Amino acid sequence: MTSPQPTAAIAALPESRPFIAPEELAKLGGHTALLRLGANESAFGPPPAALAAMQAAVARTSWYGDPESMDLREALAARHGCTLEGLAVGAGIDDLMGLVVRAYLDLGDVSVATLGTYPTYAYHVLGYGARLETVPYHSDGTVQLEALARRAHETGARAAYLANPDNPSGTFVERSAVAAFRAALPDDCLLVLDEAYADFVATAELPAMETDPRVVRLRTFSKAYGLAGARVGYALGAREIIATFGKIRLQFGVNRTGQIGALAALHDERFIRDVVAEVARGRDEYHALAASLGLRTLPSRTNFVCIDIGSRERAEAMVAELLRRAVFVRKPGAPPLDGFIRVTVGTAEERARFGAAFTAALHALSPGATFGNRTVPGATLGNRTEGDVAVS
Amino acid sequence: MTSPQPTAAIAALPESRPFIAPEELAKLGGHTALLRLGANESAFGPPPAALAAMQAAVARTSWYGDPESMDLREALAARHGCTLEGLAVGAGIDDLMGLVVRAYLDLGDVSVATLGTYPTYAYHVLGYGARLETVPYHSDGTVQLEALARRAHETGARAAYLANPDNPSGTFVERSAVAAFRAALPDDCLLVLDEAYADFVATAELPAMETDPRVVRLRTFSKAYGLAGARVGYALGAREIIATFGKIRLQFGVNRTGQIGALAALHDERFIRDVVAEVARGRDEYHALAASLGLRTLPSRTNFVCIDIGSRERAEAMVAELLRRAVFVRKPGAPPLDGFIRVTVGTAEERARFGAAFTAALHALSPGATFGNRTVPGATLGNRTEGDVAVS
Repeated sequence: MTSPQPTAAIAALPESRPFIAPEELAKLGGHTALLRLGANESAFGPPPAALAAMQAAVARTSWYGDPESMDLREALAARHGCTLEGLAVGAGIDDLMGLVVRAYLDLGDVSVATLGTYPTYAYHVLGYGARLETVPYHSDGTVQLEALARRAHETGARAAYLANPDNPSGTFVERSAVAAFRAALPDDCLLVLDEAYADFVATAELPAMETDPRVVRLRTFSKAYGLAGARVGYALGAREIIATFGKIRLQFGVNRTGQIGALAALHDERFIRDVVAEVARGRDEYHALAASLGLRTLPSRTNFVCIDIGSRERAEAMVAELLRRAVFVRKPGAPPLDGFIRVTVGTAEERARFGAAFTAALHALSPGATFGNRTVPGATLGNRTEGDVAVS
Repeated sequence: MTSPQPTAAIAALPESRPFIAPEELAKLGGHTALLRLGANESAFGPPPAALAAMQAAVARTSWYGDPESMDLREALAARHGCTLEGLAVGAGIDDLMGLVVRAYLDLGDVSVATLGTYPTYAYHVLGYGARLETVPYHSDGTVQLEALARRAHETGARAAYLANPDNPSGTFVERSAVAAFRAALPDDCLLVLDEAYADFVATAELPAMETDPRVVRLRTFSKAYGLAGARVGYALGAREIIATFGKIRLQFGVNRTGQIGALAALHDERFIRDVVAEVARGRDEYHALAASLGLRTLPSRTNFVCIDIGSRERAEAMVAELLRRAVFVRKPGAPPLDGFIRVTVGTAEERARFGAAFTAALHALSPGATFGNRTVPGATLGNRTEGDVAVS
């Protein structure tokens, strides 16, 4: 009996998962709970105003959310000084990134991105049958903008992905350099600006909010706003880009309670300011901790810090040693950052727990030990771009 | 300056929206709130156990949900007697339907469906560049199964969509007839069984839960379980179908609070039984109301009833008259059901309010009135299959 078969493009995809969840890692490690410092979730929780709004809203979970997210979009448009037609809400940046790839990359089309940056972009590019061409980070974790633009020209790329601030490195590209990068790209190549961590940077340091039909910006409530579980993100862009998403987006993809929580969070400005300030203090602590142990860190403008453990093997062993101690972190997957681990800024108490566990784990990593069986599945970010995806 | 352009397939899509939300209709009608009987949301709210679980969960909205939805999938697998590998969770049936279409229909491929059935399926088929071939309902609102199977053979269809119970008609296909339909379809044509309303039907009346690699079943927590705003649905199918979704699904697409609410709802069996019984009483009331006004209804196995208003124009005018009275209903878009309105079963009090508003609205529809300017935008279901999509 012939049975239905997926399309050739889908059949050719590998079975793979960009992330193994902390819930699964806890089970693997035999822990009931982990100190969650691996997914850059906010340690400071949802803003109190959002929490109250969501608690009041759940009784109406029997109602669909507004497919237009009108209240939220009006508030976001006011915040960013853009029009409603320049703003689309989706179920997190991952969802919106899927729309970008689906709308702008045909089968076999090329997008450029940094090797080892946020893996879900690569997941979508591959998933829609397009091709990713990569350029590695500089050894200091910064993005090779000129090389990326050059590669875009060489490959006739239709999209260029830039996470700014970057994940997993934490590094930041100044607004003038972003403008120069845009100017250096082919005009018909869409710049996909993933600004998931932009709330940790002062607005004045970010690119101006002018609509350029060659740029789409992606934002989220998952990081500074403490609403990762709500799945609410938004895209800012020219009217024609947003209208294109409107032709194919999931109309009822966003959770109603999440919409209400995001709207309330947006207005809890003092809380967000406090989170951003505390995250900066936490980063400083991590930098100091690493320095006290003789380890290098990368500069970060996000809610995480990368610490150099010395080699890929040692970094993998460190992730495993930390998991043994019920601490969940992840690590960059691709050279030159594959010898680092990436740690989310926790609360002061969590940072202290991390400091103790990290110091103990470092001592456990004796130079002669073998690490082969200490690798944690899925702890590595962007591994898909190294194995299954053709990279350059 | 050349600017980035969407792919040819996406550029060719019309700008359209499958639904206009009640929030928007309220604004258009100048109302602050509507009696929501147009989207088949549960009038009975989330189960108390789900409400309590969600209220407790929102404080952790800063955490991502489990991308594997493991706790929920384990409970669902136990409920349905299937394996974890035969079960995928998504952000509602709309999301899962998009995965089905994306995975199994190539550009230009054909799917068959009933003309005027749930419009989001047509939206996805069109959105992925495939083609919908349709067969109208019988005049009694039942699906023309033999004609659909014949059309599938004639067109070399790769998928056949059957909503069972059907939306918007409410009619039901017995399990033996579903089996005969499956047998009559080409073996390589995937049967997409949308069972959004199956919780209103006794399990013994539904097709057996055996895995057939030629069938995928879609379920939701949006209807009987009262969690439409949570966006949680699931697909049941053969291991290879579910694995195919796993290659392309949004890993973090499901809201964490929604996952927790759905799990709690699943165990609140008594509440669900009571909802199903009360919905049956409500349907009987609507049938009796219509009969008392000399109007025909369609049999329904869902939480809504279709009432025959006599003609497309009168049905459109009825939707407008009800909206004037702050009552939100929708209507089927395609003949032979376009002279009906579709009303969700409300609480006893809501049904009484609907009865009064409907009776008054009916009197307002004097035979000589003109209806042209009373049409409500987006009130019509499945209109996309009539205008923008080539239908047969």
